[in-house]
Amino acid sequence: MLATGDLIINVALTGMIPTKQDNPHVPITEAEIIQDAIRCANAGASIFHIHARDSEGNPTPDPQVYARIIEGIRAECPEVILCVTTSGRNWHRFEQRAAVLDLDGKAKPDMASLTLSSLNFYQSPSINSPGMIMQLAEKMLEKQIQPELEVFDPGMINAAQYLLNKEYIKPPLYFNIILGSIYFTQANARDLAYLVDQLPAGSTWAAGGIGSCQLPVNTLAIVMGGQVRTGLEDNLWFDCEQHSPGTNEKYVRRLRELATILGRKIITPSEARKRVLGNSQPPA
Amino acid sequence: MLATGDLIINVALTGMIPTKQDNPHVPITEAEIIQDAIRCANAGASIFHIHARDSEGNPTPDPQVYARIIEGIRAECPEVILCVTTSGRNWHRFEQRAAVLDLDGKAKPDMASLTLSSLNFYQSPSINSPGMIMQLAEKMLEKQIQPELEVFDPGMINAAQYLLNKEYIKPPLYFNIILGSIYFTQANARDLAYLVDQLPAGSTWAAGGIGSCQLPVNTLAIVMGGQVRTGLEDNLWFDCEQHSPGTNEKYVRRLRELATILGRKIITPSEARKRVLGNSQPPA
Repeated sequence: MLATGDLIINVALTGMIPTKQDNPHVPITEAEIIQDAIRCANAGASIFHIHARDSEGNPTPDPQVYARIIEGIRAECPEVILCVTTSGRNWHRFEQRAAVLDLDGKAKPDMASLTLSSLNFYQSPSINSPGMIMQLAEKMLEKQIQPELEVFDPGMINAAQYLLNKEYIKPPLYFNIILGSIYFTQANARDLAYLVDQLPAGSTWAAGGIGSCQLPVNTLAIVMGGQVRTGLEDNLWFDCEQHSPGTNEKYVRRLRELATILGRKIITPSEARKRVLGNSQPPA
Repeated sequence: MLATGDLIINVALTGMIPTKQDNPHVPITEAEIIQDAIRCANAGASIFHIHARDSEGNPTPDPQVYARIIEGIRAECPEVILCVTTSGRNWHRFEQRAAVLDLDGKAKPDMASLTLSSLNFYQSPSINSPGMIMQLAEKMLEKQIQPELEVFDPGMINAAQYLLNKEYIKPPLYFNIILGSIYFTQANARDLAYLVDQLPAGSTWAAGGIGSCQLPVNTLAIVMGGQVRTGLEDNLWFDCEQHSPGTNEKYVRRLRELATILGRKIITPSEARKRVLGNSQPPA
């Protein structure tokens, strides 16, 4: 039977790696990221996963860049959920990774990424030691910023269960399952179902895939009653043949179309806040 | 139905972490490691996973220590398979991790560990970048040292498939599946079966578990037709209640007893060489 329930579309707008050379539609500057998020929100996205870039276009942990992006999106779309990265791929100290968690008032992020182990991406490792994961989780708890729990392999779901047992994280939980890179669990129905079966009861989960795995994994998630993660961070091409560069807005529109055919409505940002954050208050 | 086929017992004698304080039977000095391996070989073990320690008892990548251990074991047990670690937990440069692969003649290892991604152990990360994995695999291929493919999560099986497709590794393949630490796939029948189903056809696989997961995972492997990894590296206690400190020899004897009840004979070292290494020649 078809799954029901309103669909939450999470867009990873920029990431750490893509450049304009890879795809001219990747939003890089603050203004581009803000405008792209607004277009996607109008198309039905309710969560944005944000990576900031500096004036050279390189990834930066500078909280002031995040503050301007967050305030810029909220000025137009006050209720969408804004999730910042705490990635350790390009910088390694806790103070750098957690700097963005100190933003307050109108610039306070709703969510922040929490990668649940060390792993390899295609070209390089992402190192998240047990101590770093616990420090970041504690800081998010203290700041009441909801972790976006990033899962690439089943060991990471067990790590989340451990953090839950030790009260480093608290319900409601939101998981992002990303499949299909060389060192990850693979992108197919069996493997996604295997992971989803292991999530703590009552969790909200979204699934996405790398490259040409993005659309099939999103589709599986829609049918299985999950939520979706899309965006240029994970996938540069609209089509499998790699003829047509994607845009974040086109990805959202395609998912909306798919969801409509499959009988799932698109959630409103205020409903998404209730489901994911456990409250319906827009940020201060 | 019960699995058949002779059982290969692989003993991880020492590891990087255990000390005499943790368990007085952990073999630390060269003489202790050699004597312990000989006792285990007499009890039925055919592969030894070796970590060397320096004169202070700390892990060392010094190839001369490995050479003396390998020659010492071979003087008594010429046909057992000797597998050295290339772990990056305590040292990070390729030259340090690969130094042991240059040993030759009577000191040449038969196998060497190849961890197939970055991951977290209980207390700290183990970083194995894509480039490092490929460099180690190439060196093993050049030296005709068989990789012991270390798997903690399904993404690592996909990484092995990738290395196989790119001819960084060649059949016969030998996988070690280690389950049950916080950041690993969990130790139960469903999860072990899920991993085993994904292995390249024709692979030999062993399974082991951390701590009190060791015996149940070994038992699952025996029933499923796999091989077993045991040893003090993964588990310090003979019993779940942690009253009785284990010894490597006791672990081997218990597995032999279990295998006998379940109708699996213990493989001879020369048969193990044929199965795992694809040849029956004892080392030069």
